[in-house]
Amino acid sequence: MRSLPDSANRLIDEFTRLPGIGKKTAQRLAFYIMKSKDYSTNLLSDALIDVKTKVRQCSICNGITEDDPCSICTDSRRDESILCIVEEAHDIYAFERTNSFNGRYHVLGGVLSPLDGIGPDDLYFDALLKRLQENMEIVVATNPSVEGETTSLYLAKILSGFNVKVTRLARGLPVGGNLEYIDEATLIRAMEGRTSI
Amino acid sequence: MRSLPDSANRLIDEFTRLPGIGKKTAQRLAFYIMKSKDYSTNLLSDALIDVKTKVRQCSICNGITEDDPCSICTDSRRDESILCIVEEAHDIYAFERTNSFNGRYHVLGGVLSPLDGIGPDDLYFDALLKRLQENMEIVVATNPSVEGETTSLYLAKILSGFNVKVTRLARGLPVGGNLEYIDEATLIRAMEGRTSI
Repeated sequence: MRSLPDSANRLIDEFTRLPGIGKKTAQRLAFYIMKSKDYSTNLLSDALIDVKTKVRQCSICNGITEDDPCSICTDSRRDESILCIVEEAHDIYAFERTNSFNGRYHVLGGVLSPLDGIGPDDLYFDALLKRLQENMEIVVATNPSVEGETTSLYLAKILSGFNVKVTRLARGLPVGGNLEYIDEATLIRAMEGRTSI
Repeated sequence: MRSLPDSANRLIDEFTRLPGIGKKTAQRLAFYIMKSKDYSTNLLSDALIDVKTKVRQCSICNGITEDDPCSICTDSRRDESILCIVEEAHDIYAFERTNSFNGRYHVLGGVLSPLDGIGPDDLYFDALLKRLQENMEIVVATNPSVEGETTSLYLAKILSGFNVKVTRLARGLPVGGNLEYIDEATLIRAMEGRTSI
Protein backbone atom coordinates (compact mmCIF):
# COMPACT_ATOMS: atom_id res chain seq x y z
CA MET A 1 0.00 0.00 0.00
CA ARG A 2 1.17 3.49 -0.81
CA SER A 3 0.95 5.80 2.14
CA LEU A 4 0.41 9.55 2.23
CA PRO A 5 3.31 11.96 1.66
CA ASP A 6 5.46 12.41 4.80
CA SER A 7 4.53 16.03 5.29
CA ALA A 8 0.83 15.16 5.08
CA ASN A 9 1.24 12.40 7.68
CA ARG A 10 3.07 14.80 9.96
CA LEU A 11 0.28 17.36 9.70
CA ILE A 12 -2.32 14.67 10.44
CA ASP A 13 -0.32 13.57 13.50
CA GLU A 14 -0.13 17.16 14.74
CA PHE A 15 -3.87 17.67 14.31
CA THR A 16 -4.57 14.41 16.16
CA ARG A 17 -2.79 15.81 19.23
CA LEU A 18 -5.44 18.51 19.57
CA PRO A 19 -8.37 17.74 21.89
CA GLY A 20 -11.46 16.25 20.23
CA ILE A 21 -9.68 15.72 16.90
CA GLY A 22 -9.53 12.05 15.93
CA LYS A 23 -7.71 10.37 13.06
CA LYS A 24 -10.59 10.85 10.59
CA THR A 25 -11.12 14.52 11.42
CA ALA A 26 -7.38 15.15 11.24
CA GLN A 27 -7.28 13.58 7.78
CA ARG A 28 -10.21 15.69 6.62
CA LEU A 29 -8.55 18.87 7.93
CA ALA A 30 -5.21 17.97 6.32
CA PHE A 31 -6.83 17.30 2.94
CA TYR A 32 -8.77 20.52 3.21
CA ILE A 33 -5.55 22.41 3.87
CA MET A 34 -3.75 20.71 1.02
CA LYS A 35 -6.57 21.80 -1.30
CA SER A 36 -6.94 25.34 0.06
CA LYS A 37 -5.00 28.40 -1.11
CA ASP A 38 -1.51 28.98 0.36
CA TYR A 39 -2.74 32.24 1.75
CA SER A 40 -5.23 30.97 4.32
CA THR A 41 -2.85 28.29 5.61
CA ASN A 42 -0.16 30.86 6.24
CA LEU A 43 -2.72 32.86 8.18
CA LEU A 44 -3.37 29.82 10.39
CA SER A 45 0.31 29.07 11.00
CA ASP A 46 0.99 32.77 11.64
CA ALA A 47 -1.93 32.92 14.06
CA LEU A 48 -0.56 29.88 15.91
CA ILE A 49 2.89 31.40 16.31
CA ASP A 50 1.40 34.80 17.15
CA VAL A 51 -0.79 33.46 19.94
CA LYS A 52 2.13 31.63 21.52
CA THR A 53 4.40 34.65 21.33
CA LYS A 54 1.95 37.25 22.58
CA VAL A 55 -0.46 35.54 24.94
CA ARG A 56 0.75 35.07 28.48
CA GLN A 57 -0.72 34.41 31.90
CA CYS A 58 -1.89 37.37 33.94
CA SER A 59 0.29 37.55 37.06
CA ILE A 60 -2.69 38.53 39.20
CA CYS A 61 -5.68 36.43 38.11
CA ASN A 62 -3.86 33.74 36.02
CA GLY A 63 -6.18 34.47 33.10
CA ILE A 64 -4.81 34.85 29.57
CA THR A 65 -3.72 38.25 28.33
CA GLU A 66 -1.36 40.02 25.96
CA ASP A 67 -0.54 42.74 28.50
CA ASP A 68 0.29 41.78 32.06
CA PRO A 69 -1.69 42.46 34.27
CA CYS A 70 -4.80 41.82 32.21
CA SER A 71 -7.46 44.39 31.33
CA ILE A 72 -9.87 42.98 33.93
CA CYS A 73 -7.37 43.23 36.79
CA THR A 74 -6.44 46.79 35.80
CA ASP A 75 -9.98 48.04 35.13
CA SER A 76 -10.78 50.45 37.96
CA ARG A 77 -14.51 50.38 37.14
CA ARG A 78 -14.69 46.76 38.25
CA ASP A 79 -15.78 45.87 41.74
CA GLU A 80 -12.73 44.82 43.74
CA SER A 81 -14.84 43.39 46.53
CA ILE A 82 -16.19 40.43 44.53
CA LEU A 83 -13.88 37.71 43.30
CA CYS A 84 -15.15 34.90 41.10
CA ILE A 85 -13.09 31.69 41.31
CA VAL A 86 -13.03 29.66 38.11
CA GLU A 87 -11.23 26.49 37.08
CA GLU A 88 -9.77 27.58 33.75
CA ALA A 89 -9.08 30.85 31.93
CA HIS A 90 -11.76 30.13 29.33
CA ASP A 91 -14.41 30.11 32.08
CA ILE A 92 -13.82 33.86 32.47
CA TYR A 93 -15.19 34.43 28.98
CA ALA A 94 -18.31 32.43 29.72
CA PHE A 95 -19.14 35.02 32.39
CA GLU A 96 -17.92 37.99 30.36
CA ARG A 97 -20.27 37.04 27.54
CA THR A 98 -23.22 37.41 29.92
CA ASN A 99 -22.30 41.04 30.68
CA SER A 100 -23.75 40.47 34.14
CA PHE A 101 -20.71 40.16 36.40
CA ASN A 102 -18.69 43.23 37.27
CA GLY A 103 -16.24 41.80 39.78
CA ARG A 104 -12.84 40.26 39.19
CA TYR A 105 -11.69 36.71 38.59
CA HIS A 106 -9.21 34.21 39.91
CA VAL A 107 -8.24 31.20 37.82
CA LEU A 108 -7.33 28.09 39.81
CA GLY A 109 -5.73 26.37 36.83
CA GLY A 110 -7.73 23.16 37.28
CA VAL A 111 -9.55 21.19 39.94
CA LEU A 112 -8.49 18.95 42.77
CA SER A 113 -8.31 15.43 41.40
CA PRO A 114 -6.42 12.92 43.55
CA LEU A 115 -6.86 10.21 40.90
CA ASP A 116 -4.95 12.37 38.40
CA GLY A 117 -2.41 13.33 41.06
CA ILE A 118 -3.61 16.95 41.23
CA GLY A 119 -3.48 18.26 44.78
CA PRO A 120 -3.77 21.74 46.36
CA ASP A 121 -0.13 22.56 45.57
CA ASP A 122 -0.80 22.22 41.84
CA LEU A 123 -3.49 24.91 41.82
CA TYR A 124 -3.30 28.68 42.49
CA PHE A 125 -4.73 28.59 46.02
CA ASP A 126 -1.77 30.45 47.56
CA ALA A 127 -2.10 33.26 45.03
CA LEU A 128 -5.81 33.44 45.89
CA LEU A 129 -5.14 33.78 49.61
CA LYS A 130 -2.81 36.71 48.88
CA ARG A 131 -5.62 38.52 47.06
CA LEU A 132 -8.12 38.27 49.92
CA GLN A 133 -9.33 41.50 51.47
CA GLU A 134 -11.61 42.11 54.46
CA ASN A 135 -15.35 41.61 53.77
CA MET A 136 -14.73 40.43 50.23
CA GLU A 137 -17.25 38.12 48.54
CA ILE A 138 -15.75 35.01 47.00
CA VAL A 139 -18.04 33.41 44.38
CA VAL A 140 -16.95 29.83 43.82
CA ALA A 141 -17.72 29.07 40.17
CA THR A 142 -16.15 25.65 39.70
CA ASN A 143 -17.98 23.23 37.42
CA PRO A 144 -20.86 21.19 38.91
CA SER A 145 -18.80 17.99 38.56
CA VAL A 146 -17.46 15.73 41.31
CA GLU A 147 -14.00 17.34 41.11
CA GLY A 148 -15.51 20.81 40.90
CA GLU A 149 -17.63 20.21 44.02
CA THR A 150 -14.63 18.77 45.88
CA THR A 151 -12.61 21.83 44.98
CA SER A 152 -15.40 24.14 46.10
CA LEU A 153 -15.63 22.36 49.47
CA TYR A 154 -11.86 22.62 49.87
CA LEU A 155 -12.06 26.33 49.04
CA ALA A 156 -14.83 26.85 51.60
CA LYS A 157 -12.61 25.13 54.17
CA ILE A 158 -9.44 27.16 53.57
CA LEU A 159 -11.44 30.40 53.32
CA SER A 160 -13.33 29.79 56.56
CA GLY A 161 -10.48 31.30 58.60
CA PHE A 162 -10.75 34.64 56.77
CA ASN A 163 -13.29 37.39 57.12
CA VAL A 164 -14.81 36.84 53.67
CA LYS A 165 -18.22 35.76 52.44
CA VAL A 166 -18.06 32.56 50.38
CA THR A 167 -20.89 31.89 47.92
CA ARG A 168 -21.33 29.56 45.01
CA LEU A 169 -23.34 29.50 41.79
CA ALA A 170 -26.98 28.40 42.11
CA ARG A 171 -27.89 24.85 41.10
CA GLY A 172 -31.20 24.38 39.34
CA LEU A 173 -33.02 24.10 36.06
CA PRO A 174 -31.12 25.32 33.01
CA VAL A 175 -33.10 27.99 31.13
CA GLY A 176 -34.89 26.41 28.17
CA GLY A 177 -34.64 22.95 29.74
CA ASN A 178 -37.55 20.55 29.99
CA LEU A 179 -38.58 19.00 33.32
CA GLU A 180 -39.14 15.67 31.57
CA TYR A 181 -35.48 15.37 30.64
CA ILE A 182 -33.81 16.94 33.68
CA ASP A 183 -31.74 14.47 35.71
CA GLU A 184 -32.77 13.68 39.29
CA ALA A 185 -29.78 15.32 40.98
CA THR A 186 -30.50 18.65 39.28
CA LEU A 187 -34.19 18.41 40.11
CA ILE A 188 -33.40 17.77 43.79
CA ARG A 189 -31.13 20.82 43.85
CA ALA A 190 -33.79 22.90 42.08
CA MET A 191 -36.42 21.92 44.66
CA GLU A 192 -34.04 22.53 47.59
CA GLY A 193 -33.08 25.94 46.26
CA ARG A 194 -36.61 27.10 45.37
CA THR A 195 -37.20 30.82 45.68
CA SER A 196 -40.35 32.89 46.15
CA ILE A 197 -41.82 34.48 43.04
CA MET B 1 -17.57 43.04 28.29
CA ARG B 2 -13.90 42.33 27.94
CA SER B 3 -13.10 40.30 24.87
CA LEU B 4 -10.29 37.83 24.29
CA PRO B 5 -6.80 39.02 23.33
CA ASP B 6 -6.55 39.94 19.60
CA SER B 7 -4.17 37.13 18.78
CA ALA B 8 -6.49 34.61 20.44
CA ASN B 9 -9.47 35.91 18.43
CA ARG B 10 -7.45 35.68 15.23
CA LEU B 11 -6.52 32.06 15.96
CA ILE B 12 -10.16 31.22 16.72
CA ASP B 13 -11.23 32.83 13.43
CA GLU B 14 -8.63 30.83 11.52
CA PHE B 15 -9.75 27.57 13.12
CA THR B 16 -13.38 28.38 12.33
CA ARG B 17 -12.50 28.48 8.62
CA LEU B 18 -11.60 24.80 8.70
CA PRO B 19 -14.36 22.35 7.76
CA GLY B 20 -16.38 20.92 10.65
CA ILE B 21 -14.87 23.34 13.18
CA GLY B 22 -17.49 25.61 14.72
CA LYS B 23 -17.04 28.55 17.06
CA LYS B 24 -17.09 26.44 20.23
CA THR B 25 -14.59 23.87 18.94
CA ALA B 26 -12.34 26.66 17.66
CA GLN B 27 -12.38 28.26 21.11
CA ARG B 28 -11.55 24.95 22.77
CA LEU B 29 -8.65 24.35 20.38
CA ALA B 30 -7.34 27.90 20.85
CA PHE B 31 -7.44 27.61 24.65
CA TYR B 32 -5.76 24.22 24.45
CA ILE B 33 -2.99 25.73 22.34
CA MET B 34 -2.58 28.69 24.67
CA LYS B 35 -2.16 26.23 27.56
CA SER B 36 0.12 23.77 25.75
CA LYS B 37 3.88 23.93 25.52
CA ASP B 38 5.45 26.18 22.84
CA TYR B 39 7.07 23.13 21.36
CA SER B 40 4.01 21.29 20.11
CA THR B 41 2.45 24.44 18.63
CA ASN B 42 5.56 25.14 16.61
CA LEU B 43 5.38 21.58 15.34
CA LEU B 44 1.83 22.24 14.14
CA SER B 45 2.66 25.54 12.45
CA ASP B 46 5.78 23.99 10.88
CA ALA B 47 3.73 21.04 9.65
CA LEU B 48 1.21 23.44 8.09
CA ILE B 49 3.88 25.36 6.22
CA ASP B 50 5.69 22.16 5.30
CA VAL B 51 2.65 20.54 3.77
CA LYS B 52 1.90 23.61 1.67
CA THR B 53 5.49 23.88 0.47
CA LYS B 54 6.08 20.23 -0.34
CA VAL B 55 2.76 18.71 -1.33
CA ARG B 56 1.66 19.31 -4.91
CA GLN B 57 -0.74 17.78 -7.38
CA CYS B 58 0.46 14.83 -9.47
CA SER B 59 0.49 15.93 -13.11
CA ILE B 60 -0.81 12.54 -14.24
CA CYS B 61 -3.51 11.44 -11.79
CA ASN B 62 -4.13 14.78 -9.96
CA GLY B 63 -3.57 13.03 -6.63
CA ILE B 64 -1.41 14.62 -3.94
CA THR B 65 2.30 13.94 -3.86
CA GLU B 66 5.66 15.39 -2.85
CA ASP B 67 7.37 14.10 -6.02
CA ASP B 68 5.71 14.62 -9.38
CA PRO B 69 4.60 12.20 -10.86
CA CYS B 70 3.39 10.40 -7.76
CA SER B 71 4.57 7.01 -6.55
CA ILE B 72 1.44 5.27 -7.83
CA CYS B 73 1.76 6.65 -11.36
CA THR B 74 5.45 5.69 -11.50
CA ASP B 75 5.09 2.24 -9.90
CA SER B 76 5.72 -0.26 -12.71
CA ARG B 77 4.25 -3.13 -10.66
CA ARG B 78 0.82 -1.54 -10.87
CA ASP B 79 -1.63 -2.66 -13.51
CA GLU B 80 -1.82 0.02 -16.18
CA SER B 81 -4.94 -1.47 -17.72
CA ILE B 82 -7.26 -0.59 -14.81
CA LEU B 83 -8.00 3.01 -13.94
CA CYS B 84 -10.11 3.91 -10.92
CA ILE B 85 -11.88 7.29 -11.19
CA VAL B 86 -12.37 9.04 -7.87
CA GLU B 87 -13.80 12.42 -6.90
CA GLU B 88 -11.08 13.67 -4.59
CA ALA B 89 -7.45 12.85 -3.82
CA HIS B 90 -8.32 11.53 -0.36
CA ASP B 91 -10.51 8.83 -1.93
CA ILE B 92 -7.32 7.22 -3.27
CA TYR B 93 -6.24 6.47 0.28
CA ALA B 94 -9.56 4.84 1.11
CA PHE B 95 -8.75 2.24 -1.57
CA GLU B 96 -5.06 2.06 -0.74
CA ARG B 97 -5.90 1.17 2.85
CA THR B 98 -7.78 -1.90 1.63
CA ASN B 99 -4.67 -3.24 -0.14
CA SER B 100 -7.01 -4.80 -2.69
CA PHE B 101 -6.67 -2.59 -5.75
CA ASN B 102 -3.55 -2.74 -7.86
CA GLY B 103 -4.49 -0.44 -10.73
CA ARG B 104 -4.01 3.29 -11.07
CA TYR B 105 -6.18 6.26 -10.18
CA HIS B 106 -7.55 9.39 -11.76
CA VAL B 107 -8.85 12.20 -9.57
CA LEU B 108 -11.68 14.25 -11.08
CA GLY B 109 -11.31 17.05 -8.55
CA GLY B 110 -15.00 17.04 -7.63
CA VAL B 111 -18.38 16.10 -9.05
CA LEU B 112 -20.73 17.64 -11.56
CA SER B 113 -23.05 19.92 -9.64
CA PRO B 114 -25.02 22.41 -11.76
CA LEU B 115 -26.47 24.02 -8.63
CA ASP B 116 -22.96 24.91 -7.46
CA GLY B 117 -21.95 25.95 -10.97
CA ILE B 118 -19.60 23.00 -11.43
CA GLY B 119 -19.73 21.70 -15.01
CA PRO B 120 -17.57 19.30 -17.04
CA ASP B 121 -14.97 21.99 -17.76
CA ASP B 122 -14.24 22.35 -14.05
CA LEU B 123 -13.24 18.70 -13.62
CA TYR B 124 -10.33 16.70 -15.06
CA PHE B 125 -12.28 14.89 -17.78
CA ASP B 126 -9.95 16.01 -20.60
CA ALA B 127 -6.92 14.74 -18.72
CA LEU B 128 -8.76 11.45 -18.27
CA LEU B 129 -9.48 11.07 -21.98
CA LYS B 130 -5.77 11.55 -22.72
CA ARG B 131 -4.94 8.63 -20.44
CA LEU B 132 -7.25 6.16 -22.14
CA GLN B 133 -5.72 3.11 -23.79
CA GLU B 134 -7.32 0.35 -25.84
CA ASN B 135 -9.18 -2.32 -23.81
CA MET B 136 -8.64 -0.50 -20.53
CA GLU B 137 -11.05 -1.01 -17.67
CA ILE B 138 -12.39 2.20 -16.13
CA VAL B 139 -13.79 1.70 -12.64
CA VAL B 140 -16.04 4.63 -11.76
CA ALA B 141 -15.72 5.12 -8.01
CA THR B 142 -17.63 8.34 -7.42
CA ASN B 143 -19.66 8.56 -4.22
CA PRO B 144 -23.14 7.01 -4.17
CA SER B 145 -24.70 10.49 -3.92
CA VAL B 146 -26.91 12.28 -6.44
CA GLU B 147 -23.97 14.28 -7.78
CA GLY B 148 -21.73 11.22 -7.78
CA GLU B 149 -24.28 9.21 -9.77
CA THR B 150 -24.76 12.07 -12.24
CA THR B 151 -21.01 12.27 -12.73
CA SER B 152 -20.78 8.52 -13.26
CA LEU B 153 -23.55 8.63 -15.91
CA TYR B 154 -21.76 11.51 -17.64
CA LEU B 155 -18.52 9.52 -17.55
CA ALA B 156 -20.24 6.46 -19.03
CA LYS B 157 -21.55 8.69 -21.83
CA ILE B 158 -18.25 10.33 -22.80
CA LEU B 159 -16.41 7.00 -22.51
CA SER B 160 -18.90 5.14 -24.70
CA GLY B 161 -17.09 6.25 -27.86
CA PHE B 162 -13.84 4.61 -26.75
CA ASN B 163 -12.86 0.97 -26.75
CA VAL B 164 -12.80 0.68 -22.95
CA LYS B 165 -14.80 -1.30 -20.42
CA VAL B 166 -16.61 0.97 -17.94
CA THR B 167 -17.58 -0.52 -14.57
CA ARG B 168 -18.67 0.95 -11.29
CA LEU B 169 -18.50 -0.05 -7.62
CA ALA B 170 -21.16 -2.50 -6.41
CA ARG B 171 -24.11 -1.15 -4.46
CA GLY B 172 -25.39 -3.29 -1.62
CA LEU B 173 -25.28 -3.98 2.10
CA PRO B 174 -22.33 -2.48 3.98
CA VAL B 175 -20.39 -5.17 5.87
CA GLY B 176 -21.44 -5.18 9.52
CA GLY B 177 -24.73 -3.46 8.67
CA ASN B 178 -28.11 -4.59 9.94
CA LEU B 179 -31.02 -5.24 7.56
CA GLU B 180 -33.36 -3.58 10.04
CA TYR B 181 -31.62 -0.24 9.66
CA ILE B 182 -30.65 -0.29 5.97
CA ASP B 183 -32.47 2.33 3.87
CA GLU B 184 -34.84 1.18 1.12
CA ALA B 185 -32.74 2.45 -1.79
CA THR B 186 -29.74 0.39 -0.66
CA LEU B 187 -31.91 -2.67 -0.07
CA ILE B 188 -33.38 -2.38 -3.60
CA ARG B 189 -29.85 -2.19 -5.04
CA ALA B 190 -28.71 -5.12 -2.90
CA MET B 191 -31.63 -7.24 -4.15
CA GLU B 192 -31.09 -6.20 -7.78
CA GLY B 193 -27.39 -6.97 -7.58
CA ARG B 194 -27.75 -10.33 -5.78
CA THR B 195 -25.06 -12.88 -6.63
CA SER B 196 -24.97 -16.69 -6.38
CA ILE B 197 -23.23 -18.09 -3.31
